[in-house]
Amino acid sequence: MIKKPDFSSLEVVKNEYSDRDYDIKISIPEFSCVCPKTGLPDFATIKINYIPGTHIVELKSLKLYIVKFRNMGIFHESATNKIFKDFQKSCNPKQIEVIGEFSARGGISTIVKVNSK
Amino acid sequence: MIKKPDFSSLEVVKNEYSDRDYDIKISIPEFSCVCPKTGLPDFATIKINYIPGTHIVELKSLKLYIVKFRNMGIFHESATNKIFKDFQKSCNPKQIEVIGEFSARGGISTIVKVNSK
Amino acid sequence: MIKKPDFSSLEVVKNEYSDRDYDIKISIPEFSCVCPKTGLPDFATIKINYIPGTHIVELKSLKLYIVKFRNMGIFHESATNKIFKDFQKSCNPKQIEVIGEFSARGGISTIVKVNSK
Amino acid sequence: MIKKPDFSSLEVVKNEYSDRDYDIKISIPEFSCVCPKTGLPDFATIKINYIPGTHIVELKSLKLYIVKFRNMGIFHESATNKIFKDFQKSCNPKQIEVIGEFSARGGISTIVKVNSK
Amino acid sequence: MIKKPDFSSLEVVKNEYSDRDYDIKISIPEFSCVCPKTGLPDFATIKINYIPGTHIVELKSLKLYIVKFRNMGIFHESATNKIFKDFQKSCNPKQIEVIGEFSARGGISTIVKVNSK
Amino acid sequence: MIKKPDFSSLEVVKNEYSDRDYDIKISIPEFSCVCPKTGLPDFATIKINYIPGTHIVELKSLKLYIVKFRNMGIFHESATNKIFKDFQKSCNPKQIEVIGEFSARGGISTIVKVNSK
Amino acid sequence: MIKKPDFSSLEVVKNEYSDRDYDIKISIPEFSCVCPKTGLPDFATIKINYIPGTHIVELKSLKLYIVKFRNMGIFHESATNKIFKDFQKSCNPKQIEVIGEFSARGGISTIVKVNSK
Amino acid sequence: MIKKPDFSSLEVVKNEYSDRDYDIKISIPEFSCVCPKTGLPDFATIKINYIPGTHIVELKSLKLYIVKFRNMGIFHESATNKIFKDFQKSCNPKQIEVIGEFSARGGISTIVKVNSK
Amino acid sequence: MIKKPDFSSLEVVKNEYSDRDYDIKISIPEFSCVCPKTGLPDFATIKINYIPGTHIVELKSLKLYIVKFRNMGIFHESATNKIFKDFQKSCNPKQIEVIGEFSARGGISTIVKVNSK
Amino acid sequence: MIKKPDFSSLEVVKNEYSDRDYDIKISIPEFSCVCPKTGLPDFATIKINYIPGTHIVELKSLKLYIVKFRNMGIFHESATNKIFKDFQKSCNPKQIEVIGEFSARGGISTIVKVNSK
Repeated sequence: MIKKPDFSSLEVVKNEYSDRDYDIKISIPEFSCVCPKTGLPDFATIKINYIPGTHIVELKSLKLYIVKFRNMGIFHESATNKIFKDFQKSCNPKQIEVIGEFSARGGISTIVKVNSK
Repeated sequence: MIKKPDFSSLEVVKNEYSDRDYDIKISIPEFSCVCPKTGLPDFATIKINYIPGTHIVELKSLKLYIVKFRNMGIFHESATNKIFKDFQKSCNPKQIEVIGEFSARGGISTIVKVNSK
Repeated sequence: MIKKPDFSSLEVVKNEYSDRDYDIKISIPEFSCVCPKTGLPDFATIKINYIPGTHIVELKSLKLYIVKFRNMGIFHESATNKIFKDFQKSCNPKQIEVIGEFSARGGISTIVKVNSK
Repeated sequence: MIKKPDFSSLEVVKNEYSDRDYDIKISIPEFSCVCPKTGLPDFATIKINYIPGTHIVELKSLKLYIVKFRNMGIFHESATNKIFKDFQKSCNPKQIEVIGEFSARGGISTIVKVNSK
Repeated sequence: MIKKPDFSSLEVVKNEYSDRDYDIKISIPEFSCVCPKTGLPDFATIKINYIPGTHIVELKSLKLYIVKFRNMGIFHESATNKIFKDFQKSCNPKQIEVIGEFSARGGISTIVKVNSK
Repeated sequence: MIKKPDFSSLEVVKNEYSDRDYDIKISIPEFSCVCPKTGLPDFATIKINYIPGTHIVELKSLKLYIVKFRNMGIFHESATNKIFKDFQKSCNPKQIEVIGEFSARGGISTIVKVNSK
Repeated sequence: MIKKPDFSSLEVVKNEYSDRDYDIKISIPEFSCVCPKTGLPDFATIKINYIPGTHIVELKSLKLYIVKFRNMGIFHESATNKIFKDFQKSCNPKQIEVIGEFSARGGISTIVKVNSK
Repeated sequence: MIKKPDFSSLEVVKNEYSDRDYDIKISIPEFSCVCPKTGLPDFATIKINYIPGTHIVELKSLKLYIVKFRNMGIFHESATNKIFKDFQKSCNPKQIEVIGEFSARGGISTIVKVNSK
Repeated sequence: MIKKPDFSSLEVVKNEYSDRDYDIKISIPEFSCVCPKTGLPDFATIKINYIPGTHIVELKSLKLYIVKFRNMGIFHESATNKIFKDFQKSCNPKQIEVIGEFSARGGISTIVKVNSK
Repeated sequence: MIKKPDFSSLEVVKNEYSDRDYDIKISIPEFSCVCPKTGLPDFATIKINYIPGTHIVELKSLKLYIVKFRNMGIFHESATNKIFKDFQKSCNPKQIEVIGEFSARGGISTIVKVNSK
């Protein structure tokens, strides 16, 4: 059984260019979780834009972290905020923004955007 | 018979992440109302972008609220301003912008944008 | 109260170029009806492609005919087939195709295509 | 005052490659005429695709021919058929197709297609 | 014969939401006038973006105003500036921008943008 | 626990227009299953195009059928062929085509297309 | 001074796969010549699609051949037919199609298509 | 050192649906090889469309096969024909088409298409 | 023989709306010059955005000015800067920006942007 | 054997317009390197935007510099930062930004952006 997503499963590696601020923009078009109300799957593109501090998040572990949401019942706002917080805890970036662009339900689509500014 | 849209039909739920400002962007491409002059249907995409305060609007109730405009005679400017005011009353957001992008009539299309800034 | 759509409300005018087969393609992106199951509005683009016989359908009356579906509970397949039959009855075209491209519901969108070939 | 469009104003030049069938496709996105019912301007893209016989139509004269429709009251079907017939008379092509793609009126757009096949 | 466009033909209606600044963006893709040099038609999309004051411009009268340019010889810069000034006179908006996007002539296309800032 | 997808879960309703062949095209952009090799999720758009016989498939049951693939380990070719066979068994269409457009893996994307012709 | 384009400047190399018919499609978006009437430059995309026989045309020599049209006064139909004939002479393909897509002049754009079928 | 691409490195698996013809379309946008003339890298999208016989090609081995072209000097026509032949040898498909869409060089881009029909 | 482009060939006309700052944006997608290194033609889109002072540049003369670059050997940076300077000299605009978007050479494309701010 | 990319292989030429700040934007869609973990090729578009000082980088040498990454094992962040630093060393620009847009791996794509501000 797949465990819940948790910040500790995000592995980090040393940022070798920490003497200068630079941007890393990650796009994950294959995010999926479950609607807590209907039990039906939800789909989203998750975007993570950050300025790394001393460490950057390793992409393979990020992928496995994202997959753990797959069968978890969670609202759009909660999923986006949880990724934001887990990412912050794991690599303590200088700046970070997480955007969740969720597919339409009932003809209504939503985008949730959280940032550290 | 469907009743008129009213702010009280917008249900709200507690914002569990109110310690941080974040954006929610809602897109509703299936808005329709009736032109008060001609009695013919008008079509629009309504966009609601807001920073929630203590509460967020529940999407299912938003959908039902929007459907109530369907047979109501109302001008473009009035529809957009009414949604703006009803949304403000229902969940008292920190910031809000409502955009109505109306289909062309007589070769002329209009966009109405209201915000709280 | 708006009456049900009926072939008799489609007015026709004489085809002045009936000595030669030619195509007329009509696109109506603002079709709307009501889902008989949920009572919620459905949206579609209706396309009517035909080779006129002795008469062509007058566009203003077609618009008013289409508007009459607005509050009618009808399935996707039925709406498309009904328009096909009403159009046939009204102007008896040499060839006709009616396509209904319906907006997604529950992440599933459908296209219904009926033709006289 | 601008005279009515007439086939005689379409000048032709000798087709120097008449030993082989080849296609000429002309696109005129700036066609405009007047709706005979409302007196308001209509807009269209006219496409003329033909296999020339002994002669081809000179483009400058085609432009001036098209401009003559500008203040003429004429229906979509008639304008397309008239261009088809005038073009046939002027250069007697081996094959010809004329397509008129008219801008939407009342949310309904039409395409008229006439060909010699 | 169609008269010249004039600010007095732009009808206005009371702005019922004048307690708050909001934007109205109007797009008119079917503008046409005549080049004063060549006598040939010019085509443009006119965009009018404004923050209404006490009144807003009624769209039907705007359409008829725009149609009056159809056979008028006028340069791109003049047409855009004239619409800007007529709109200002008619409804005295708090802020206004008029953009004329003219089709290419001789492989060169121009955009003229006038605003009140 | 969600059961495996099975043809018997596809509900059918009577085709009221079976006197005439017509097309139904269904697009499901939110298909997901699991790669049997890596255990990681796969994503696809499934398209089902068919000419109904005496019955058509009810869309709500189709949605629930599709959701059952979500945690099932299955190859691209197998998933597409299984949907094809289950759909055939459930409503016995006159003609049917099933297309699975799978997201890229390792920079390679695949489309599988099965039809009854 | 650059010489006129001539079939002899198209170099060919042996087709090593002549045991099987296959297609080569070449697209040259940077074609330019001069209008014989106005002396002004014309621009086009030239497309050459052919099934090679015993030889294929070498691309570098094709580029230099194309450049030779740059200051040559030639009509759209003539340029396209000339390339067609020069290409045939140089490598004697089993089948060939040459398409010239010329930029708009006076709001009218033309495509000339010559093929060996 | 990476070895040359060879049909024997394409692994196949049993086609479990060989009782019915169906299409598999594979798109590989990250193909790269080296120009034998200049020694500089070339880039292409390779598309392989086939109807499998008794076996299908395993995608992971296809990926590794494709990577072996990376430092190989080979012409566009040769690369496309080689992939065609290697694919045929490895899984003996009922029908196959290989398309190589190569990036522009000197403003000229080429597409090579080989099929078994 | 065509002379070199020179600021004096840019004709100007009086700006009748000089009491207000406004923008003129000109796009010229058919710019061509010659690479001084290879002697081969280069292609670009030139964009000129300016706020006119007492005069505006006449478009016909601008077109003829641009054509004069056609057989001139000049680098991307030089062409863009030269147009910038010639335009400044000819009409002395309040603000001006010239952008040259050059087609790819060797898989590398460049944009040069010069402005007066 | 191809040597490693190094700043010294970036040739520079004198900036003849150094009296004024202007932008040069270079786009290189054909960057490729090797993933240090898997040994498989990575693909990216590299964008270099800079304001030149006394010198500009010569494009041919830039192309050859970029090609040297082709068989080098290097992470996305490192490649982008290395190009940034080598470019700085070679021509000492007044301002510079380097962006690496890398193709998706495992459904996740990344953009790295380094600038001198």
